[in-house]
Amino acid sequence: TTTTTTLPSMRKVGILGGTHGNELSGVYLVKQWLKNKAAVTRKNFETTVCLSNPRAVEKCVRYIDTDLNRVFTEDNLRSSQEDSNNMYEINRGRELHAIFGPKHSDAAYDFLVDLHNTTSNMQNSLMIHNTQDPFVVQLVRYIVDKLKHLESNYVFITGNAYQTTRTVAKHGLGIEIGPQSHGSLIADVYQKMETITLHTLDFIEKFNEGEVFNACTIEAYDIIDKIDFPRDKDGEICAMIHPAFQFKDWTPLKPGDNIFVTFKGETISYQGDKTVYPAFINEASYYEKGIAFWVMKKVELSAPTLQMKRD
Amino acid sequence: TTTTTTLPSMRKVGILGGTHGNELSGVYLVKQWLKNKAAVTRKNFETTVCLSNPRAVEKCVRYIDTDLNRVFTEDNLRSSQEDSNNMYEINRGRELHAIFGPKHSDAAYDFLVDLHNTTSNMQNSLMIHNTQDPFVVQLVRYIVDKLKHLESNYVFITGNAYQTTRTVAKHGLGIEIGPQSHGSLIADVYQKMETITLHTLDFIEKFNEGEVFNACTIEAYDIIDKIDFPRDKDGEICAMIHPAFQFKDWTPLKPGDNIFVTFKGETISYQGDKTVYPAFINEASYYEKGIAFWVMKKVELSAPTLQMKRD
Ligand SMILES: [Zn+2]
Ligand SMILES: [Zn+2]
Repeated sequence: TTTTTTLPSMRKVGILGGTHGNELSGVYLVKQWLKNKAAVTRKNFETTVCLSNPRAVEKCVRYIDTDLNRVFTEDNLRSSQEDSNNMYEINRGRELHAIFGPKHSDAAYDFLVDLHNTTSNMQNSLMIHNTQDPFVVQLVRYIVDKLKHLESNYVFITGNAYQTTRTVAKHGLGIEIGPQSHGSLIADVYQKMETITLHTLDFIEKFNEGEVFNACTIEAYDIIDKIDFPRDKDGEICAMIHPAFQFKDWTPLKPGDNIFVTFKGETISYQGDKTVYPAFINEASYYEKGIAFWVMKKVELSAPTLQMKRD
Repeated sequence: TTTTTTLPSMRKVGILGGTHGNELSGVYLVKQWLKNKAAVTRKNFETTVCLSNPRAVEKCVRYIDTDLNRVFTEDNLRSSQEDSNNMYEINRGRELHAIFGPKHSDAAYDFLVDLHNTTSNMQNSLMIHNTQDPFVVQLVRYIVDKLKHLESNYVFITGNAYQTTRTVAKHGLGIEIGPQSHGSLIADVYQKMETITLHTLDFIEKFNEGEVFNACTIEAYDIIDKIDFPRDKDGEICAMIHPAFQFKDWTPLKPGDNIFVTFKGETISYQGDKTVYPAFINEASYYEKGIAFWVMKKVELSAPTLQMKRD
């Protein structure tokens, strides 16, 4: 006999664009859906469409004072009064927390999907922060299955996820598509982001109709390390991503493979002890975070058979 | 008999990076050359290396208050006192004008090369603002000849050039290489920018040695029009560059070819009456200028036989 896990129906669903104001697929999808919600309307749940960081969207910059996707920590969210040094994103974070949260409470939204772009060649990447959440594991299995005909789709587990905007809800998914230069719109990327978001809503609708999703095991990637650019004593970059490594996200990286080239043309190779899977190679917004690329390992994610709990 | 044009030797040469603070090939080339000028040192002229917009470079943004490459107009440069509404780039423009100018004066630098990047697939593009300048026409002929083995190299005439930083000198060249996401470094792009800049210095050195450059005619592109994205009544974009047009800079565009796709997926085709050559397709920093792409036509640029004037 298969043990079936049940979860309550998902009645409150949110779609977030512009958590980073210059990642334009999500910004423009949300702007279209704000004008006409038909495409994101479903009969058995309520969909809220929201620009997470409106001031950053208006200026077409990643953020105004600090990265919104890193502010949803316990202490940031606890202190209620206007943030002392009034960082815009910390105050905005509290507003979002009030709308879609509070975090870990019964009142929180059931589900948030957050739409991101990257200058890296991440292609279609789905970001999970809670691997113990059968709903999200079944969701990404469903999406990957629907996207089989498209080139490459990747599921990965985000390490620092617990400060991201989508962690405010009971369940959350991040969609990360690239390469796309920040501040620009690539039509293919926009259309893929739209397709994946609509598949997400379809899955939730089917779940709410009581459909059974059989136990599954899927391939995913989990983060091992974040590698910075080589820097000089003043912290200034002194090498670039090697041409043979540029845009090679998700392509196996073997020890000894070239990863950097110095401004003088000397190569620097990967010193790890085993084959790994790189991601976020040369993401423009990560230079200031001291990250040249992420190093991931392959893992398997499993989920039991899942069905909505009958009230 | 061939008439030979003579011009005075070029003794003061400047290399500018960071005119736009987030176009990183020029920023990092200039930073390297500031640390070690050997590669840009030549025996018969003085080379000055300069970050044009240091505050924009520091924040890795295109500009602080306004586009530095549009401030070198007569009235901006004339008023000497601190600019009333103290736009950083207007004041910085005056500083640069004092260093490399004054414009149209004998004291001005002989030559300025300005290093730019674009998110468009412009590949190696050389920008001329004065087609009547035989020195620059012979220079780009020399560079294109040296780059023959590389893929595509394009010479084009910039329309609004007279406000650009390089117009402060007697002669100027802009180098524009892409695609590269702003705020990131692509090693190939950096290395091509370095190669082209060093060819530029080599040409000036040969000119100062009295070498004769025979009369020539080269293929170039001149601007006909700048096409904006379709926008709604609020000025908001309502279409994206069509996938078949994305990255197709310099590829002939025929009437009826698709250029845009709306957010709903409807295509919009080019309504021009003849085949043209598109450039700066989907340059991220041009969204705010209301430009989706430039429309160019092929032209020929000629220069007489050129030799340095004997003192
Ligand atoms: Zn993002
Ligand atoms: Zn530029």
